[in-house]
Amino acid sequence: MDLHEVSNLLALVKEQKPLIHHITNYVTANDCANIVLALGGSPVMADEINEVEDMVSLASALVINIGTLNTNTVGAMLKAGKKANQLEIPVVLDPVGVGATPFRIKAAKEILENVKISVLRANMSEAMILAGINTEVKGVDTTDSTEGNEQIALNLSKKLHCLTAITGKKDIITDGSKVFIIENGHDMLSDVTGTGCMCTSLVATYTSISQSLESTIAGVITMGIAGEMAFNSLEKNEGIGTFKRKLFDSIYNMTPKEIEQNARLHSI
Amino acid sequence: MDLHEVSNLLALVKEQKPLIHHITNYVTANDCANIVLALGGSPVMADEINEVEDMVSLASALVINIGTLNTNTVGAMLKAGKKANQLEIPVVLDPVGVGATPFRIKAAKEILENVKISVLRANMSEAMILAGINTEVKGVDTTDSTEGNEQIALNLSKKLHCLTAITGKKDIITDGSKVFIIENGHDMLSDVTGTGCMCTSLVATYTSISQSLESTIAGVITMGIAGEMAFNSLEKNEGIGTFKRKLFDSIYNMTPKEIEQNARLHSI
Amino acid sequence: MDLHEVSNLLALVKEQKPLIHHITNYVTANDCANIVLALGGSPVMADEINEVEDMVSLASALVINIGTLNTNTVGAMLKAGKKANQLEIPVVLDPVGVGATPFRIKAAKEILENVKISVLRANMSEAMILAGINTEVKGVDTTDSTEGNEQIALNLSKKLHCLTAITGKKDIITDGSKVFIIENGHDMLSDVTGTGCMCTSLVATYTSISQSLESTIAGVITMGIAGEMAFNSLEKNEGIGTFKRKLFDSIYNMTPKEIEQNARLHSI
Repeated sequence: MDLHEVSNLLALVKEQKPLIHHITNYVTANDCANIVLALGGSPVMADEINEVEDMVSLASALVINIGTLNTNTVGAMLKAGKKANQLEIPVVLDPVGVGATPFRIKAAKEILENVKISVLRANMSEAMILAGINTEVKGVDTTDSTEGNEQIALNLSKKLHCLTAITGKKDIITDGSKVFIIENGHDMLSDVTGTGCMCTSLVATYTSISQSLESTIAGVITMGIAGEMAFNSLEKNEGIGTFKRKLFDSIYNMTPKEIEQNARLHSI
Repeated sequence: MDLHEVSNLLALVKEQKPLIHHITNYVTANDCANIVLALGGSPVMADEINEVEDMVSLASALVINIGTLNTNTVGAMLKAGKKANQLEIPVVLDPVGVGATPFRIKAAKEILENVKISVLRANMSEAMILAGINTEVKGVDTTDSTEGNEQIALNLSKKLHCLTAITGKKDIITDGSKVFIIENGHDMLSDVTGTGCMCTSLVATYTSISQSLESTIAGVITMGIAGEMAFNSLEKNEGIGTFKRKLFDSIYNMTPKEIEQNARLHSI
Repeated sequence: MDLHEVSNLLALVKEQKPLIHHITNYVTANDCANIVLALGGSPVMADEINEVEDMVSLASALVINIGTLNTNTVGAMLKAGKKANQLEIPVVLDPVGVGATPFRIKAAKEILENVKISVLRANMSEAMILAGINTEVKGVDTTDSTEGNEQIALNLSKKLHCLTAITGKKDIITDGSKVFIIENGHDMLSDVTGTGCMCTSLVATYTSISQSLESTIAGVITMGIAGEMAFNSLEKNEGIGTFKRKLFDSIYNMTPKEIEQNARLHSI
C-alpha cells in the first residue's frame, strides 16, 4: 500500500468537492453533514421515496445508514441504491445496530439482496450478524472481539463482493484478498455518538473519488488520526464536548502530509 | 436522603453501562445520546413501530419524549411502553409542550392510560396540564410558576403512581409522599434547546440502575451541577455555544464526590 | 435605511421573546432552535399534520424549510401556512435545494400557490429556480453567480409579493422596489451545514416583530457579523468545530450597537 495514494485522496476531495447523498438517521445527520464538509465534500440528506432517485443521480456516492430506519426510509434506501447501481455511483452501507432487532436484520438483508454495495463499514458485532454468525448485540454499540476477526472481514468481502471496513480498537480493511490493519484512533471516539456514522461518511466521500482499498483506508484513517489529535490537545476538565469540537477542527485542517506522518497502517 | 446513595448511582452507571432506549424528538436526539454516553450509559434511538418491542427488550430503561411526536411515533411509544411494562423495564416520560396542542394532550393521555410510567420529568406548565389544571402554555418552554408547586407535584405522583420531577428555577422531586427541592442549576440552561430532554435522559439512565427517589434526584442534580460548572468556567464573549460544550465536558468528568459536594438538596 | 431601526429589532426580540414555529429538516433543527434562543426568541419544532394549525396559532412567525421534506411534512407545511395566513402570522420560506429534484420543485410550487409568504430566504441557485430561470443545481449548496442578481431578486419579490433575501458572497435584500446589499459574512459560513437554515430562522425571529425590509436585513446581517466575529477569533488549528461554537456565542452576546458598528450595508 502506497500511503501517498491514500493521502492524496484528501487533496482530490478538496479539489472535486463531491456531492454525497445520505439516507441516514436523524440522531447523527448533522454531524455527518459537517464531517463531509470538513473533509471538503458537499453533503445532501434526502429520504423521501419520490425524490431519492433524482437526488442520487446528482451525487458522486450514496450513504445508506440504517440507524433510525423505518418502513418508509427502507423503501427509499432500496430505490436509491438500485438507481445508484444503474448509474455506477458507489454505495456505502452502515448497518447500524443490525443485530438488535429482526426488523433491522430483514432490512439489511433486503438491501444487500437488491443493492450492490461498494463498501461495508461496520463494527464487529454488526459484521458478525451480516456474516451469518450469531452474536449478542447490545443496542447499536459494541465491544471488540479478538481473534479470527480478519477472517470474518475477508469472508464478508467475498460474500458481498465489496470492500469491508470493520472498525474497533484495531480497524480491519479488506477487499476480500488483501487485509490491512489500522491502529490509529482513540478510545474516546466511542464516547461520542455517531463517530461510526461519521467514519462511514468519510469513507463514502473518499470512495466517490475512487472505489478502492485506498479510499476505504483513507476514510478510516482520517477518523482515527483526528481522534488522536483531538484527544492529545484536550486540557484538564475537558471531555466529550470539547473532544467532538476538536474532531471537526482536526479534519477541517488535516493535510495529506499529516495523514502520511501519522498513519499506523500495516498489511497482514 | 443519604447523598451518598444519590452520588453512588453515578459509579454504578459507569460500571453497568445500561442501554437506554429513546423514542424521542429529532431536534435534541443527538444531545440526548451524547449526554447518556457522557454519564456512562449507552443510548439507542429507534422509533419504527415494527422494531420498538424488540429494541426495548434489550434496554434497561425507556425514554418516551413527545417533542416532535407524530401519529406513527405515538403508536411506537404505546407499543414500546407496554412491552417495557411487561418486562418491568422502567419508563420515563417527558411530555414536551403537552399543553400546546390538543394532539399532544390526547397523545399524553393515551400514553398515561396505557403505559405505567416510573418517572415523569416535566416543567411546571406541562405538569399542570397533566394534573388537569389549565394553564397558558407558550410553545414547549415555560416560565416558573411560584407557590403551590409542591402540591401539584405531589398530586401528580399520587395520580400517576410514579416519581415526579418538575424542573425549573427550583426543582421539585417527589414520590407522592416525600418532597425534595433541588436548588442547583443556572438560568443559562434555559437558553440552550434540549436541556429538559437531556435531563430526562439522565434521569432514565440513573433509573435503569434503581427505580427510586434517589435516581430521579441524581438525574436532576447532575444536570444542575453541570450547568453551574459550565457557567462558572465561561469567559468573556462566550455564550451558549461554549456553555453547551462545557455541559457535556462537566458531565463526562463528574465524580460522585463532586455531586455530594455541590448538591443543594433539602426535603420539605 | 436607518441602521438604528435594524439594530433596535434585536432589543425588541429580547424583550418580546417571540415563539417561532418551524416545520424544518432534521439535519439542522437543533442548530435552528439554538440560534433562535441565542437571539432571544423561543423556538418550537412540530410537523405532525394534526397539530400544526394549533401550534402555529400560538406562534409569532412560521418557518417553512424544505431541507428534508417528505409527503407528510409537505402536507403539514401547507396546512400550517394557510392557517398562518388566516391569522396574519408571517411565513418565512427556505426552499432548500429546490432545484435538485422535481419533487422539491413541485412542493415549492404548491407552497407558493397556497401560502402567502412574507419573506423568501434562498441562495442564488434556489432563487433562480423559483424565478423560473433554469440553472444547474448541485445538491443543496451552491456557488455565487455574478451580475444580474439584483434583477432576479427584484423579479422574485414582485412575482411572489414578498421580501426576498438572496444570500451568498454578497447578500441581496429587496422588497420589490428598494434593493440593499450586505457585505458582511465570511466564506467559512459555507463550510458549516445549516448556516442558510439558521439565517432563515433569524430572519423569521426578527420578522415576528415587524414584517419589514429592516427585519430581513437584521436577520441576514446578524448572521454575517456573527460569522466575521467567529472567524476573527479563531486560533491556529481551529476549524469548523470551533467556528460553529463561536457563531452561537457571538449571536448570544451580540448587541444592537455591535450591529450598527459592523454593518456593511448599502442600497443600490
